[in-house]
Amino acid sequence: MSGRSRATRPTLLVLDADPPPRLGKLTGRARIVHTDEAKLAERLPEADVLLVWDFHSKALRAAWPGEGPRPVWVHTASAGADHLLSPELIESDTVITNARGIFDEPIAEYVAGLVLAFAKDLPRTLDLQSRREWRHRETRRVGGTRACVVGSGPIGRAIARSLKALGIQAAVVGRTPRTGIHGPGDLDRLLAHADWVVCAAPLTDSTRGMFDTRRFGVMQPSAHFINVGRGPLVIEDDLVEALNRRWIAGAALDVFDREPLPEDSPLWEVPGLVVSPHMSGDIIGWRDELALQFVDLYESWVAGKPLKNVIDKKRGYVPGH
Amino acid sequence: MSGRSRATRPTLLVLDADPPPRLGKLTGRARIVHTDEAKLAERLPEADVLLVWDFHSKALRAAWPGEGPRPVWVHTASAGADHLLSPELIESDTVITNARGIFDEPIAEYVAGLVLAFAKDLPRTLDLQSRREWRHRETRRVGGTRACVVGSGPIGRAIARSLKALGIQAAVVGRTPRTGIHGPGDLDRLLAHADWVVCAAPLTDSTRGMFDTRRFGVMQPSAHFINVGRGPLVIEDDLVEALNRRWIAGAALDVFDREPLPEDSPLWEVPGLVVSPHMSGDIIGWRDELALQFVDLYESWVAGKPLKNVIDKKRGYVPGH
Repeated sequence: MSGRSRATRPTLLVLDADPPPRLGKLTGRARIVHTDEAKLAERLPEADVLLVWDFHSKALRAAWPGEGPRPVWVHTASAGADHLLSPELIESDTVITNARGIFDEPIAEYVAGLVLAFAKDLPRTLDLQSRREWRHRETRRVGGTRACVVGSGPIGRAIARSLKALGIQAAVVGRTPRTGIHGPGDLDRLLAHADWVVCAAPLTDSTRGMFDTRRFGVMQPSAHFINVGRGPLVIEDDLVEALNRRWIAGAALDVFDREPLPEDSPLWEVPGLVVSPHMSGDIIGWRDELALQFVDLYESWVAGKPLKNVIDKKRGYVPGH
Repeated sequence: MSGRSRATRPTLLVLDADPPPRLGKLTGRARIVHTDEAKLAERLPEADVLLVWDFHSKALRAAWPGEGPRPVWVHTASAGADHLLSPELIESDTVITNARGIFDEPIAEYVAGLVLAFAKDLPRTLDLQSRREWRHRETRRVGGTRACVVGSGPIGRAIARSLKALGIQAAVVGRTPRTGIHGPGDLDRLLAHADWVVCAAPLTDSTRGMFDTRRFGVMQPSAHFINVGRGPLVIEDDLVEALNRRWIAGAALDVFDREPLPEDSPLWEVPGLVVSPHMSGDIIGWRDELALQFVDLYESWVAGKPLKNVIDKKRGYVPGH
């Protein structure tokens, strides 16, 4: 690593959010400076380390210094790093780490819940209840159905494990085929046979907009689509069209092009679409887990040990096993 | 077995429902007579076998002949037999069988879906969506939580298996303690520590009304209660009180004292209560499975082989392993 020396107490700049992280364990071991988006560019040159706690912020892209002093390490309290990766940051020797691992099981449970809710027609049950209507329906078994999980990182793999635990045949598709992981060449065939298509891919130049009219057209009319990755992985207008034309049976979006989803967005009212506010991985206590994870990484960094969760900046994610 | 001879083509009386069973495979091997509730008493004496296809019907209790000719075998296309068991039928030598097995996995999936929906706050997500409100919430992990499944028949055990597959510690309580099954003496202690209480017990004299004010009072304020057994296992007014006073966090009822639930029932609008129309086990194709199962049993019976799924009439269910 380059940048300034770590001999003295390092400066830890925190791009903050509400609530702020609990970094009490670092008291005396870092000079902690909090900043908002407006002051970020001004404060970056004095920082050894940047903690992007406000993972909704895209401010770092514009604020990253081209030359001169800059943090040697940036950590984002999120699984995705798409909101950070400016060309200048990619080219620099600054190391980026992410919150790999924190969201895996929570998101896997969330997806399992959506799959079962769709199979058992729960949204309609709740709607009928609100109208005091007793209407018996036959619903689907999930055991024996097929899922295609797009994204072979730890979140995608955890999703596949939890779906398999329900008796679902779950295939995982990643950028690089390897044991248990299909390559991109298998994607369309798997989509065509899937009852459940789950998107948990990182947002990169090669995944942006990958779920479009053509791919929704490949899916079965009985298929459901779930996006827990990043909003721009999906062409939202194309999804709306696919639902309206009943090319697929239903969908759930937890992430969107614009977050929060604007009140006047048509997505709120598309039949068969479940809209949730980017919360699939956020279990009670998640912020504490994120802070603890950062403290652990910080201790490795101060001790000169290799950092875990280092993102391949060219690819845009932590390379998998 | 007593009753009339099976030498000639037996008379199979079907207490019908809509849609009627597909019994084509029995063509020529049984004289099939369909009846509704009104004609049931009149037709029972001429029947060798009664198929209670309309499992909502309680007409058999009143219609069962005290003396004289009567069916030697009654099959109900349901898991529960509480709707049949009049004292006269219990005392008679008529054999009763049920649809054991058909509903196990479907109901287990349904319960898993409800547990995940509660943990991930899905009903509120749908409610907020209908109001176009973006409101991020932190939700619960199910992995590591505890469930108490009341009912140790194949349905209860399937529920426990599917919850365990999600990482939930699931204890099963039955009438008779045995390997892997707790006895009634453990019930209150298990209820007091459970995050999820699932009722899948048969309705008998000893289980009727078992979920009452005292038992809801034992549960944790964060607990959710789910009934997929029979309505009268729960004192509905007590559940409403427990929810209104927030003794427990939520509940789901798929079965009720009166079905269909009357439109003016207060249950439709109790906060935290999910109402569904007795459908937890009813997957697409379930009626065909029920009919096939009966045909299989009929073939055993005609061949003089021992019948499966025979109910212990004194206990009110098929004794377990």
